Amino acid sequence: MPVSTIEWHGGVDGICRIIEQTLLPTELKYVDLADQRQMWDAIKRLAVRGAPAIGIAGAFGVVLGFKDSKATTPAEFDRDLEAITKVAQGLRTMPLQAARERLLAEAQTILTEDKAICRKLGEIGAPLVPQGRSALTHCNAGGLATADYGTALAVFFRAKELGKRFHVYVDETRPLLQGSRLTAWELQHEGIDSTLICDNMAAMVMRDKDVGAVFVGADRIARNGDTANKIGTYGVSVLAKAHGIPFYVVAPVSTFDLTIPDGKHIPIEEREDKEVTEGFGKRTAPTGVRVFNPAFDVTPHANIAGIVTELGLIERPDAERVPAFFERHRR
Amino acid sequence: MPVSTIEWHGGVDGICRIIEQTLLPTELKYVDLADQRQMWDAIKRLAVRGAPAIGIAGAFGVVLGFKDSKATTPAEFDRDLEAITKVAQGLRTMPLQAARERLLAEAQTILTEDKAICRKLGEIGAPLVPQGRSALTHCNAGGLATADYGTALAVFFRAKELGKRFHVYVDETRPLLQGSRLTAWELQHEGIDSTLICDNMAAMVMRDKDVGAVFVGADRIARNGDTANKIGTYGVSVLAKAHGIPFYVVAPVSTFDLTIPDGKHIPIEEREDKEVTEGFGKRTAPTGVRVFNPAFDVTPHANIAGIVTELGLIERPDAERVPAFFERHRR
Repeated sequence: MPVSTIEWHGGVDGICRIIEQTLLPTELKYVDLADQRQMWDAIKRLAVRGAPAIGIAGAFGVVLGFKDSKATTPAEFDRDLEAITKVAQGLRTMPLQAARERLLAEAQTILTEDKAICRKLGEIGAPLVPQGRSALTHCNAGGLATADYGTALAVFFRAKELGKRFHVYVDETRPLLQGSRLTAWELQHEGIDSTLICDNMAAMVMRDKDVGAVFVGADRIARNGDTANKIGTYGVSVLAKAHGIPFYVVAPVSTFDLTIPDGKHIPIEEREDKEVTEGFGKRTAPTGVRVFNPAFDVTPHANIAGIVTELGLIERPDAERVPAFFERHRR
Repeated sequence: MPVSTIEWHGGVDGICRIIEQTLLPTELKYVDLADQRQMWDAIKRLAVRGAPAIGIAGAFGVVLGFKDSKATTPAEFDRDLEAITKVAQGLRTMPLQAARERLLAEAQTILTEDKAICRKLGEIGAPLVPQGRSALTHCNAGGLATADYGTALAVFFRAKELGKRFHVYVDETRPLLQGSRLTAWELQHEGIDSTLICDNMAAMVMRDKDVGAVFVGADRIARNGDTANKIGTYGVSVLAKAHGIPFYVVAPVSTFDLTIPDGKHIPIEEREDKEVTEGFGKRTAPTGVRVFNPAFDVTPHANIAGIVTELGLIERPDAERVPAFFERHRR
C-alpha cells in the first residue's frame, strides 16, 4: 500500500503517526499522537478504525501510556498500567525503561504481523475474484482498516497484481460512508476499476449487472461462523444468497472468538442518532424523530460461502467446520 | 392531512401554491408559482414530487402556461399549446378565456379526484396494517407525494384513525433522503409512532424486530404487476420475501400501464453523480469516482403480496390477475 495507515516514529519516547481518516477522501492528512489520551480520542472519533488497525493502535497506545510514567516500583507500575490496559501485565517486575522497550517491540511486532497477515489474506482470496466480472464490497476492509493491505480489499489488491481483470461495486455504507470516503478512495489509488453505489442499489446491481462475488471484512466471528460486521452486511448477504452470488468474509484468525457459540451472543453497539439525522453537517430529519442506529449486524453462517483467513479458506463455515479448521491448524 | 401539498389560488390568472419540499424537514415553506417556467423548475428540482402530485402540478402548469398567451386564433393557440403540452388539444377552437377556465377546472378536478383516491387507498389498505406490530416503508409515498393523504402512507393514516396500534420503520432512502426528510416528518405530524433507519438496516430490522408488513408506493406498474418505484424498493422486496414478510404496493390505478408487458420494458432514469457524492452539501467521495445512480428499480410481481388500488386489492398480481382485475372493473 502506498499509504501507511499507522506507524511509530522514534524509540519508546516517540510518537504514533496515523492518517486522519475523518478528512478522507478530500484531504490526506497525517496526525502525530504524542500521548495516550490523543490515541484513545483518535480511536473514539474513528480517525483510526477497523478491527486490525484498532488492535495496533491499542498496542501503541499502551506504549504512549507509559511515556510519562514515573513508576519505579511494581506497585507504581501497576497503578499506571491499570489505567491503561492489561496487555503488559507480564512486564510489571521489569525496570520501567526495559518494560517500555518491550511494549514498543511488541506493538511493532503486532504491526509487522498484521502486514504479513494482510498479504496472506490477499494471496488466499485472490483466486476467488471473478475474472472479467464484478465483485461487490461493503464498508471499508482496506489498508485504512489495517496497517497495510486490508482484509477484503487485500483480495482485490492481490488479484490486480496478478493481472486479473475485474470491477468492484462499492456500497457507500451509511451512516458514516466508509465505502464512499475510504474504499472508493483506496481502490482508485490502486487503479482498480470501481463504481460507487448507495447501499440500497446493491440489490439492483446484483440482479442486473454481472456480480460474481461479494467480499466483506469482519469484526468478530463466532464458533459457528456467524459474523458480526458493519451494519448492512447482513442485508448484503441475504441479497447475495437470493441472487446466487457467493458471499465471502475475509478476516484474520484473531477475529474469531471460539468461546462465543453463535451470533446471538455477540452484543451490538448502538451509536448516536446524529450519525443518521445529521450525518454530514446538515440536519436531514425532523427534530425529535426516533432513530435506530446499530453499528453492526450479524450475518448467519448459512449465508457465507467461505471465510478467507491467513491460514486458509474455511468453506461453508458452520459449528463443525470452524472448530475443526482451528483444530487442524493448532501448532 | 393538515398540510396541503399543492393548491390553486385565484381564477385562471391565479397562482399555484406548493410546499417547497427541498427545505423539509427543517423548514415548512410554501412557494407561489406564477408562471409555467417556475412550475417546470419546481418539478425538476423536486420541490414538488411523487407521481400523483406531479400529475396535478403538470395540469396546473398548463393553466399557468396560458397565462400570458395572446392567442386569438386557433393557430396562435396551437403555437402556445405546443410549447406546453398536448393535454389541452381538444380546447383549441374555444375562445382563449373559456379554454383557460376549462383547463383550470380540469386541473382542479384532477386534484379533487386525487384526494378521493388517496382516501380510498387508505380505506382499502388499513386492514393490512399489522395490529400491535411494526410495518416498514421506503421513500415517501405520503401526502407530500400526492395532493392530500398519500398512497402508502394513506394506509397508515387511516389505520391510525381507526384506532389501530402499530409502529413504522422508515428507510431514510438514499440518495435524496425522502424517507428521513419527508416520511418521518409526515408520520410525526400525524402522531404515528415511527423509527428512522438507514436503508441498510432494513434487513436486521426485519429479522430482529417485529415487522409484519411492508408498504411502498409506485411510479409505474406493468401489465404483469412488475412495479417501478424509488431505488431500493426492489432490495426491500427481496429482504421481505427472505423474512416471510408480505410486501404491499399502494398505488392508484392511473399508475398502471397495461401496454407495458413487464418490468424489463420500463426505462430507468439515471440521475447525476452529485446526489451520491455530495448529497449533503459536503463532498463525501473522491474526485473522479465513477457512480451508478438509478432513480428507480423494478420489483418483480413475484415479490408482491398485493397491490392496493382505489378499486380494490389485487392479490398476488401477475400477468393474468392484473388484466382480469381491470376487466372486472371496466365500466
